[in-house]
Amino acid sequence: MSITKGEIRSGAYYDSVILMQLQRSLADLPGVIDAGVIMGTDANKELLTQSDLLAPEITAAGADDMVIVIKGEDDRAVQSALGKVDDLLAARRSSGVDAEYLPKSLESAAQMMPDSQWVLVSVPGRYAAGVAREALNLEKHVFLYSDNVTLMDEIAMKKTAAEKGLLVMGPDCGTAIVHGIGLGFANKVRQGSIGLVAGSGTGLQQVTSRIHQFGGGITQALGTGGRDLSENVGAVTARQGLDLLNRDPETKVIVLVSKPPAKSVADALVAAARQAGKPVVVDFIGYSTAVRRVDNVHFATSFDEAAQLAVDLSSRETEKVEASLPDLERFSTGQQYLRGLFSGGTLAYEALLVLQDYLPEVYSNVPLDKKYRLEDSLVSREHTILDLGEDEFTVGRLHPMMDNDLRLRRLEMEASDPEVAVILLDVVLGYGAHPDPAAELAPAINQAHRQAEAAGRHLEILAVVSGTDEDPQDFHAQIEQLQAAAARVFTSNDSAAAYAGRLAKTLSQVSPQSKGESPAEVDLQALYQPMAAINVGLETFTESLNQQGARVIQVDWRPPASGNEKLMGILERMKSKQQGGS
Amino acid sequence: MSITKGEIRSGAYYDSVILMQLQRSLADLPGVIDAGVIMGTDANKELLTQSDLLAPEITAAGADDMVIVIKGEDDRAVQSALGKVDDLLAARRSSGVDAEYLPKSLESAAQMMPDSQWVLVSVPGRYAAGVAREALNLEKHVFLYSDNVTLMDEIAMKKTAAEKGLLVMGPDCGTAIVHGIGLGFANKVRQGSIGLVAGSGTGLQQVTSRIHQFGGGITQALGTGGRDLSENVGAVTARQGLDLLNRDPETKVIVLVSKPPAKSVADALVAAARQAGKPVVVDFIGYSTAVRRVDNVHFATSFDEAAQLAVDLSSRETEKVEASLPDLERFSTGQQYLRGLFSGGTLAYEALLVLQDYLPEVYSNVPLDKKYRLEDSLVSREHTILDLGEDEFTVGRLHPMMDNDLRLRRLEMEASDPEVAVILLDVVLGYGAHPDPAAELAPAINQAHRQAEAAGRHLEILAVVSGTDEDPQDFHAQIEQLQAAAARVFTSNDSAAAYAGRLAKTLSQVSPQSKGESPAEVDLQALYQPMAAINVGLETFTESLNQQGARVIQVDWRPPASGNEKLMGILERMKSKQQGGS
Repeated sequence: MSITKGEIRSGAYYDSVILMQLQRSLADLPGVIDAGVIMGTDANKELLTQSDLLAPEITAAGADDMVIVIKGEDDRAVQSALGKVDDLLAARRSSGVDAEYLPKSLESAAQMMPDSQWVLVSVPGRYAAGVAREALNLEKHVFLYSDNVTLMDEIAMKKTAAEKGLLVMGPDCGTAIVHGIGLGFANKVRQGSIGLVAGSGTGLQQVTSRIHQFGGGITQALGTGGRDLSENVGAVTARQGLDLLNRDPETKVIVLVSKPPAKSVADALVAAARQAGKPVVVDFIGYSTAVRRVDNVHFATSFDEAAQLAVDLSSRETEKVEASLPDLERFSTGQQYLRGLFSGGTLAYEALLVLQDYLPEVYSNVPLDKKYRLEDSLVSREHTILDLGEDEFTVGRLHPMMDNDLRLRRLEMEASDPEVAVILLDVVLGYGAHPDPAAELAPAINQAHRQAEAAGRHLEILAVVSGTDEDPQDFHAQIEQLQAAAARVFTSNDSAAAYAGRLAKTLSQVSPQSKGESPAEVDLQALYQPMAAINVGLETFTESLNQQGARVIQVDWRPPASGNEKLMGILERMKSKQQGGS
Repeated sequence: MSITKGEIRSGAYYDSVILMQLQRSLADLPGVIDAGVIMGTDANKELLTQSDLLAPEITAAGADDMVIVIKGEDDRAVQSALGKVDDLLAARRSSGVDAEYLPKSLESAAQMMPDSQWVLVSVPGRYAAGVAREALNLEKHVFLYSDNVTLMDEIAMKKTAAEKGLLVMGPDCGTAIVHGIGLGFANKVRQGSIGLVAGSGTGLQQVTSRIHQFGGGITQALGTGGRDLSENVGAVTARQGLDLLNRDPETKVIVLVSKPPAKSVADALVAAARQAGKPVVVDFIGYSTAVRRVDNVHFATSFDEAAQLAVDLSSRETEKVEASLPDLERFSTGQQYLRGLFSGGTLAYEALLVLQDYLPEVYSNVPLDKKYRLEDSLVSREHTILDLGEDEFTVGRLHPMMDNDLRLRRLEMEASDPEVAVILLDVVLGYGAHPDPAAELAPAINQAHRQAEAAGRHLEILAVVSGTDEDPQDFHAQIEQLQAAAARVFTSNDSAAAYAGRLAKTLSQVSPQSKGESPAEVDLQALYQPMAAINVGLETFTESLNQQGARVIQVDWRPPASGNEKLMGILERMKSKQQGGS
C-alpha cells in the first residue's frame, strides 16, 4: 500500500530551518504521504519510528548525518521525491538572504559593523560555546539561544563575561527585549517602566504579554537561560541583570522570574533584590515563602500575579513609604537586641514569622522552630519574642490582656539590659480586656526611656495597638497616650514586626548580602544604544530583527573544520592565542 | 532599708481577678513598696524571686495555696498591710455582683435561664474540663477560655460535642463574636458579611479589627482554641465552624486563621474549604503554599492581608466566575487523563505547579518532583505534561514554537488514546515564533475532535494563547481560528492549568475530601438567637456581656470538694451517672 525509503547524507550541515523546509517541500510532492528530514540522533530516529518513518537503510545514521525519509504511495513517487532533494536545497539557498554578500565569520561581521554590541548565537549546541567565546573575545554581549550546551561551558563563559562586564544571556535563552527590540522569541510589548530578568523564556514572554494586556509596559527584559539559577551557575547573569535594572533610571519596578531555582541561589538573589532601591516582584516557580512581602520584595506565585503586581506597583507614584529608622547614632555601642513582650499569642507567632526574614535567630517561648526555644521563659536571650499569655505564665494569674503587672515588670527588666535596643509590645483592646491599658503602659514606657537615657542609651519602643474605634477603651486616646510616652505606634502587627526586624538587623550589623565576588559592572549603555547585532545561526532571527527595524548582519556560518571535533579544538586554541584570550 | 514578708493561705480559692485586685490594694497602702499575690506554683514563685519578692516563709507554698508577699519600708508597714488582707478580701466580696442571688452551680443557673445556649468557662485549668463536660451534658455550647487543660480532656470533650452537634470553642479560646456579642476578649466590630473561624485568639481579634478598619464587617467569629489544628485534635471545632459558616446565608466570605497548624490537618481543612460554595481566605501561620489561590480558596500570609482580601472579596458582587466544566456525560467511560503538550518550558512548569493541587500524580519530562519523571518522553503516562522544547527534542530540529511538526504528530497520538480526556496546548506568539501557528494547530484540533467523536469519545482541547495585540501574528485572529476548531482558549496559563486540573480531577474521581466521620450538624440557630449565656469563672466576662446588652447569669463557682482531687473525681462520676452521660 505504501513504501518507505530513506537516505543518509553524511556530515552535511544544514540549519534546522532548512531541514524543516525541505521536509515540508518533500511532503507536498505528488504521491508522497509523509516525509522526515532530521539529523540522525537516536532521539530523532525514535521519533521517526513513532511516525512510522523508519526505513532500514537509515538506522546506521549518526548525529552528524542528515537523514531523509520518504513514505510514498509507490516506489516511483518515493524515488522521484528523493531525486528532487538537491534541487530543493539549491532553490532554498538562492531564495534566502544572498549568501555571497554575507561574512563567513563572526570576526569579519564585527569588522563590517564595528558598533554592534550584541551577538545572537543559535548554531547547534556543540558549536555554540565556541561561537559565544569568540563573541566575548570581540567584547560583545551574547544572546545564546542554542541549547544542548554543557554546564561546564556555561560556567566558564559566564565567568569570563562577568569579568569583562559583558552579558551572556543563555544558553537556552529563548527571549529578551533590549531597548524595545526583541531577540529570539519576543512579543511586541508597550514601552513602560517595568524591567524584567528571567531565567525562563516563555515565563518572560507570558509576563511581558500580561503586563501589556494589563495596561503596563516594559523597559528591558533580560533572559538568563534556564540554568542560570542552578547551584552550579549561581545566577551570574541574573545578578548582572538585577544590578543593571537597579541602575537604570527608566526602570521603576523590577520583575525576577525563573524556572524552579536552587533554593540557596534563589535566597541569595532575593537578598540582593532587597538591597535594590526599587520594588522587586519575584516569581520563581515552586519557591515558597512564608510571607508575601519582605521590604521592597513582593512574592508572586503565578505569571499573572507577577504581571498584575508589577503593573500595580509601577502605577503608584511612589511605593508606600517605609517608616524610616531612627538615627542609629543615638544607640550606644552594644545595643542591638530586640525584645518582644506580647500578650497576644498569635501576634507573637506572626512577629516571629516576619522576623525570619530579618534576624537569623530569634528565641521564644513559642518558637516556630524548636531550635530557638528559650531555656527559661523568665530570661531573654539575644533577640527574644515572648508570649506572656502562654500557659506557664497564667496559672492563678489573669491573662496579660487584663493584668499588665507581669508585662510592666518584664518591660523594666528588658529596658535595663544594656544590649537591648528595641522593645515591641502589643496593646489589645476590646471587651474583656483591660479598660485602659495605655494608662499603665505609657508611664512604664516613659520610665524605660528615661532610665535608658540616664545610662547613655537610646531605646526604641514599638506598640501595636489592635482594636477598633468602637471599642470601649477609646482607640485613638490609647494611641495618643502611647505616643505621648514616645512609643512608636503601629496598627498593623506585621508592619511593626518588620520595622523591629529592620532596625535590629541594622544594629546587629548582619551582613545582608551574600559575599560572592562582585562582577564588573555592565555598562548601562548596552541597553540604550540603538540595537546593532550580529546573528550566527537561524536566519529567521535576522529576518525578525530587520522586521523590527534593528540593524543586523547575518553570518554565513558553517561548522568549523566541517564538524571535525579534533580539528575544531586545535583551531580554537590557535585563535584564542592569536587574540590573547584565555 | 526594706523588709519583705509573706504568708500562705492553704487551699484558699480566689479567682485571678481577686488576686490581682488584692495585690494592687496592698501595693497602694502607705509604707508598702511592692506586693505580690499569687497562687504558689513554681513558675509564680520564680517570678516573685525575679521581682525580689520571695520571702523565705513562702517557699513551701504549693500550687493550691494563695501566697501573699509584702515588701515594705519597715516591719510596721508590712505587718499592717498583712493585717488588712482579710478586710480587703471581704470588701471585694461585697462590692462585686451580689453573691447571695447567684446560683451556686451550672445546673441551677441553667434552670434559671432555660433558653441559655452558651456556657462560658474561665475557672482554673484543672477544673475547667469538668465544668465544660457538665455544660455539654446540659446541651449547651461551650466557650472555654481556661488554659492549662489537658490534651486528653480536649479530645474527649470535642468528640462528645461533635456527636451532639454542639460547639466547644477552646480550651484556651480567648475570643469569639456570636451574633454581634463578644465572648471573652473581643473587639466591637461592624456587622457585615465576613465570617471567621480562628484557632488563634489575638489572630481573630487582629483580623476582625482590621476588617473593621478597612471598612468591612463580620457575621460571626468563632474561636476554636489554639490546639484545634494540631494532629491530635484534628480541627474538630474548625470543621464545625467552617460547616456552619458555609450554611450561613449571611456569610459571603469565610476567613480561617490559625496558629502554626499541623500540616496534614491544615491540608485537610483546606480540602474541606475547597468544597465550600463561597470564597475562603486562609491564613495559617507558617503554612506555605506554592500558589496563592486554589479554586475558591485564597491564601494570605499575614493578618492584614487576610483582612484586606476578605474585605475585597466581600465587596465584589459575585466572585469571578470560574469557567464551568463541560457536560461530563459526553466523555466515554475510561476517559480521565490530561495530556499537556507545551512548547514553552516555563509554561509547562507553571502548569505542573498549579496541577499539584488537583491531581496527585502528573508525569513529565520536566517534573517538579523527580518521582514523576517520565521514563520515555515519547510515551505519555496517565496525567502527563510535556515540554516539547526540552533539549532531548531539539537536536537538529527547530524549536516547537517555530515548527509545529512534532506537536501535531504528538497531538494526533494523544487524541487517539482512549483514556485521554483533556489536551492542553500553549500557543506562543511574537517575533521569532511561527508566523501563523493557529493555521496549523486548528485543523489538527478539528481532526482530533472528529476522530474522537467517531470513536464515541469527547475531547476537551484547551489552548493558552500567549501574546499581545501588537504581535505580528494577529492575536485575535489566532484566538478565533482556535475557537472555530472548538478549542477552549485561555490567555492566562495558570487559569488554563487550573481548569484542566479541575476537569481531570473530576473525571478521575479523585475523592476531594478527607474521609473523617462527619460530625452531627450544629444548628445554625445557635448563632442567630439573641445571646443568653451562663458564665462560670471570671466575673469581668459577665460584666462585659451585660455591657453589650446580652443576657447572662454568673455562677458563684467554687472548686468542687474544696479542690480535693480524689473527691472531685468521685463526685463527677456520680453526677455523670445520674445524667446518663458517658
